[in-house]
Amino acid sequence: MSQHLNVDPLEELSKQLENDHLGPLWETLGEMVTKEPTHSMKPYLWKWQTIRQHLLKSGELLTVGRKAERRVVYLQNPSLKDKVGFATETLYAGIQLLLPGEVAPSHRHSQGAIRFVIEGDGAFTTVNGEKTYMEEGDLVLTPAWTWHDHGHEGTEPMIWMDGLDVGMVKNLCGSFFELFDEETYPVKGIPDGTISRFAGVGVRPIADRKGKDGYPSPLINYKWDNVKKALEELSQLEPDPFDGYAVDYINPTNGQSADARIGCTMQMLSPGMHTQGHRHVHSVIYHVKKGSGYTVINGEKYEWSTGDFFVIPPWHWHEHGNTGEEEAFLFSINDRPVMEMVGLEMEEVYEKNNGFQEVERIFQP
Amino acid sequence: MSQHLNVDPLEELSKQLENDHLGPLWETLGEMVTKEPTHSMKPYLWKWQTIRQHLLKSGELLTVGRKAERRVVYLQNPSLKDKVGFATETLYAGIQLLLPGEVAPSHRHSQGAIRFVIEGDGAFTTVNGEKTYMEEGDLVLTPAWTWHDHGHEGTEPMIWMDGLDVGMVKNLCGSFFELFDEETYPVKGIPDGTISRFAGVGVRPIADRKGKDGYPSPLINYKWDNVKKALEELSQLEPDPFDGYAVDYINPTNGQSADARIGCTMQMLSPGMHTQGHRHVHSVIYHVKKGSGYTVINGEKYEWSTGDFFVIPPWHWHEHGNTGEEEAFLFSINDRPVMEMVGLEMEEVYEKNNGFQEVERIFQP
Amino acid sequence: MSQHLNVDPLEELSKQLENDHLGPLWETLGEMVTKEPTHSMKPYLWKWQTIRQHLLKSGELLTVGRKAERRVVYLQNPSLKDKVGFATETLYAGIQLLLPGEVAPSHRHSQGAIRFVIEGDGAFTTVNGEKTYMEEGDLVLTPAWTWHDHGHEGTEPMIWMDGLDVGMVKNLCGSFFELFDEETYPVKGIPDGTISRFAGVGVRPIADRKGKDGYPSPLINYKWDNVKKALEELSQLEPDPFDGYAVDYINPTNGQSADARIGCTMQMLSPGMHTQGHRHVHSVIYHVKKGSGYTVINGEKYEWSTGDFFVIPPWHWHEHGNTGEEEAFLFSINDRPVMEMVGLEMEEVYEKNNGFQEVERIFQP
Amino acid sequence: MSQHLNVDPLEELSKQLENDHLGPLWETLGEMVTKEPTHSMKPYLWKWQTIRQHLLKSGELLTVGRKAERRVVYLQNPSLKDKVGFATETLYAGIQLLLPGEVAPSHRHSQGAIRFVIEGDGAFTTVNGEKTYMEEGDLVLTPAWTWHDHGHEGTEPMIWMDGLDVGMVKNLCGSFFELFDEETYPVKGIPDGTISRFAGVGVRPIADRKGKDGYPSPLINYKWDNVKKALEELSQLEPDPFDGYAVDYINPTNGQSADARIGCTMQMLSPGMHTQGHRHVHSVIYHVKKGSGYTVINGEKYEWSTGDFFVIPPWHWHEHGNTGEEEAFLFSINDRPVMEMVGLEMEEVYEKNNGFQEVERIFQP
Repeated sequence: MSQHLNVDPLEELSKQLENDHLGPLWETLGEMVTKEPTHSMKPYLWKWQTIRQHLLKSGELLTVGRKAERRVVYLQNPSLKDKVGFATETLYAGIQLLLPGEVAPSHRHSQGAIRFVIEGDGAFTTVNGEKTYMEEGDLVLTPAWTWHDHGHEGTEPMIWMDGLDVGMVKNLCGSFFELFDEETYPVKGIPDGTISRFAGVGVRPIADRKGKDGYPSPLINYKWDNVKKALEELSQLEPDPFDGYAVDYINPTNGQSADARIGCTMQMLSPGMHTQGHRHVHSVIYHVKKGSGYTVINGEKYEWSTGDFFVIPPWHWHEHGNTGEEEAFLFSINDRPVMEMVGLEMEEVYEKNNGFQEVERIFQP
Repeated sequence: MSQHLNVDPLEELSKQLENDHLGPLWETLGEMVTKEPTHSMKPYLWKWQTIRQHLLKSGELLTVGRKAERRVVYLQNPSLKDKVGFATETLYAGIQLLLPGEVAPSHRHSQGAIRFVIEGDGAFTTVNGEKTYMEEGDLVLTPAWTWHDHGHEGTEPMIWMDGLDVGMVKNLCGSFFELFDEETYPVKGIPDGTISRFAGVGVRPIADRKGKDGYPSPLINYKWDNVKKALEELSQLEPDPFDGYAVDYINPTNGQSADARIGCTMQMLSPGMHTQGHRHVHSVIYHVKKGSGYTVINGEKYEWSTGDFFVIPPWHWHEHGNTGEEEAFLFSINDRPVMEMVGLEMEEVYEKNNGFQEVERIFQP
Repeated sequence: MSQHLNVDPLEELSKQLENDHLGPLWETLGEMVTKEPTHSMKPYLWKWQTIRQHLLKSGELLTVGRKAERRVVYLQNPSLKDKVGFATETLYAGIQLLLPGEVAPSHRHSQGAIRFVIEGDGAFTTVNGEKTYMEEGDLVLTPAWTWHDHGHEGTEPMIWMDGLDVGMVKNLCGSFFELFDEETYPVKGIPDGTISRFAGVGVRPIADRKGKDGYPSPLINYKWDNVKKALEELSQLEPDPFDGYAVDYINPTNGQSADARIGCTMQMLSPGMHTQGHRHVHSVIYHVKKGSGYTVINGEKYEWSTGDFFVIPPWHWHEHGNTGEEEAFLFSINDRPVMEMVGLEMEEVYEKNNGFQEVERIFQP
Repeated sequence: MSQHLNVDPLEELSKQLENDHLGPLWETLGEMVTKEPTHSMKPYLWKWQTIRQHLLKSGELLTVGRKAERRVVYLQNPSLKDKVGFATETLYAGIQLLLPGEVAPSHRHSQGAIRFVIEGDGAFTTVNGEKTYMEEGDLVLTPAWTWHDHGHEGTEPMIWMDGLDVGMVKNLCGSFFELFDEETYPVKGIPDGTISRFAGVGVRPIADRKGKDGYPSPLINYKWDNVKKALEELSQLEPDPFDGYAVDYINPTNGQSADARIGCTMQMLSPGMHTQGHRHVHSVIYHVKKGSGYTVINGEKYEWSTGDFFVIPPWHWHEHGNTGEEEAFLFSINDRPVMEMVGLEMEEVYEKNNGFQEVERIFQP
């Protein structure tokens, strides 16, 4: 009876609500609507040597059958370890090994996908029948719900990065997948026709003028030489304060992101360059195309060199530095296109300390 | 040594990958990319009597201060119980009680929000200075990042439904919140000016022609009489096979969803009407505005009557029946606008058994 | 020989250029690129009594056959008399008489067309199979390249205004015309289904959600009662300084102009109201739906009463006054949608003399 | 009195209508709404030698002052001789001579303008402060209402083509013109920065990502080498049946026409190539960048060689042939962007005679 007197009627109401699968907003509003983005995701950095070594090992172990088709080692953000394949809350990155003569049969899925070639050449990707050969540094699109397959006509192993919006589609419960009836989709036209159609800046074949809603991009292979040249030319101008010399990969028929949902960006940092800090809602997976340097994320320094991968969570301060003697190139994918579609993108400049965070600690994997 | 022989080298590789925060795609691809949407969310139905009773109790207990401003009982989907406030993976619904003389101070947040009035009148909402009075059946918008406050000039308690895209914004890590400097935002023009500006079908004041990108909707209160009349007129035509007579609430300046991310729909089911089954990627929270009937969801029958709430998860078969003697009205919110923006919406018609699922069981809360 | 000395070599060059169908820009630049719009078009006003009398006469004379189908008297701007049917450089207005039992066979043309009902009822218009009955004050759309026919099931003569962008299409050399294979296009659904589908403000049937690019408008009849009510409600707010209480007719699925190229507007001027002067690039044809007053155009006063038509040329100052004892209603069509598409619309406010032009003379037809 | 009996009452009505500035549609409908585009415009071809000779003569005669700034010889279509500067109903082309050291002071106008460089180098154009040097074959944009000026730092005369939509703006009564306060607009950044920013295919600087509505194009100089390379690559694929290998110049931020209203196209015809006939509503001004061949227009053969200009009126059959031993390059401007905005574009393929018109006569200037 005295116990009874001690019962807080609000607590009792909360318990009753819980029983009835209801909740008391007066207790939990702060969890649902936060002043700034809150989440459990943390930054992380993976060394290339570690990834590569495991990947080559998988090449020895997985030699035939369905498993070989999936010979991919992917980033598993330790702060999101219950979510299989999440590098960020929205994005996935895998590193794939394809051996000469191997085939990844034609299929399609509602996830968008991009490929960034890390090592080798001679492999090809076919997208809705457009066949393109992959060389180091190329960005190849296999947009959501397009039929695509890969093969390898070369003589050496090929390694590339797969970027998919696995988390985005998972969170939105929109995953669909289909295998094509045949192993490969019939090839249309000449190989690399997509590149031949878009070989000039600011011009578009008249055939791509009509009856197009812009999806998917008719250009599916963005060659490295071309992107590198663009950055070198751009470096005659003022760099972006936060990202140095940087370009987005775009769909040439509408100027939008090359993949409709996955933003792709290449940055070039001059030797000694140290960019100013800022933060934004969209999250990013970085792959160091070439060079060495560091990125300070919320006060922690992540040192990187060629091949490494690292991730920047939403609304985390970050700034980049190049400590090498040559230009550093950072390739990255992000979920900015979706954030802008839905109106949730925000950005804030780091104003304190002349725009540079104080480094509190150095990341050790 | 004999142990050593037993170690599967692939298992060992998997363990090493796990240590290095990497993952083996050959083991987990099926979890990331599924043939059809897979998720843990289940349907559920909440009886109005239960909700209302708890809400009134909270009105007795929370009488002053900050907690009273949040006098809201919300749906907590038992299948998503670790995610506070999730009725679906993207949407939240709360039932709010505002007593005469109370005020909810002006604030804004990046979540979109709608209000659907269940009981009472005399309360008002102010959106960026536009003041509108709320009556039963009205839909009132407080779009993302607009300043809004509520007050109550009437004499009886008011109850309304709040619909926010809490899960959507949470999953995308985009929550921002700000309190306005003062308790209320200064009122512009006359109360209900928004309604006076849009009092005709198919016409728009010339002042709303210029310099508008369509966000937010200049019309913030969609009166019940008007929507009811629209449905009665519509009922002279063929009903939609899946939803009966149904209208979307739209922004009159661009024809898009009234709230840019939260779809709002009102359906009218004639007595005896039983719609055909279908499923789609977008999820839905239903509130029974009036009437009695049932919804069959993936073979389970959910019986509803006036005031009840229920949810339909992504990619679940569903069909509706009206067992009452009068028209039934179902109000619902959904995440279809976002699904369409990002290109993930799909729909499938239930073809078997003349379009009607076999009912395997009847839901009991 | 002495003559020869007198020849200006520049004049000689000009002559040679002319012979070779070339021109000297140094002589003519000022004609091509002017500081402000220059054109030969002037304002004009037509009295309703005059139009109506001639129209009824034509009804007596044209009783059978193809000519009866075209029983239309149109405005011929005297300043554009070499351009058949030009009321402005872009727009045409005709006043049509349809007698009971008559039919205008189904056809389509690339000109956009609107109908505004002046007298009578019982006639109908069918647009791509949607049939709608016409009553006084209704605006009925027959958008470019849609099949349309008219008939008359009533007992009294009907008179309506036809508005087409004849000049626009002529100048752009884009006129196409086709007769339908049969006299009438098969009617779909119930008459006035278009009105039943859009009977509520801010709501849209879900059937009109999918697979629509917004052209043509699914709503084809904008009822007068509805528009009048919208203006009465609007009159609780501040009037537009230049146009009083005014609404544009819009396509409810995209918020754009009801006819994609021909803007349609209804204005209400309160008794005694005198609006401020301004000018814009788009031109306008006005029809006085009801009331009496005047419009000052570039310093000349045009006095109007019920039924009259008048035109405002591009870039002409204009202001309106209501001298009657009741609200005046002005219906108008304009080419603003095209001007905005192509980026040529400009507007300037009349600042002198408190915004009111000095009246230099009064127009006499 | 007997005379009186002879008066046709319809004729009398027509006269009365004319007196009252009204018109009888039953007499004139066929003039306003035609089955197919009708207009008085005819094709024409101007020989380069003739143009150039007159232009150089003008260079001798106009040496100082305002006239020198306008040292332009323009095409005056003999079928449109009452419309000053009309090469087609919508488009103007002038051939401009700028001598070393000369300046065309900064100004802006509502007409869109493009420049195509025919001879020389060393001149520059500045657009809203972006300075770019002009070389043979370059396309330089000076979009509508942007401040622009030209100067010449080279040592030899420069000749380029000016393309403006003079007729379009004239017909729509939208001409505005302003001189800048100073002779030249202050230069921003480095010369040819516009080219450096867009030096890669399918990539865009991140600075051009934000806050842009796509107008005007941030790329203002489309270099000839780049376009030529694009066409050479394109020639590995199937040619367009009507235009050979052809590219549109586009705004890289939105994929739309480089100039919002004036379409610009470069075609390459292989030796011996003879394209199939078709016709469309948009009109075209052609300039032969290089090569020799012919174009058959409505049965008349127009033979062209390097430097010539010719025009194709709306809805005229046309097909092209290359009679030279090398690739022929045809640059052209058109009004297709506007035709598509307003929904008047139509196209028809010439089906008879395997797609080739019978040549009835050969054009002689």
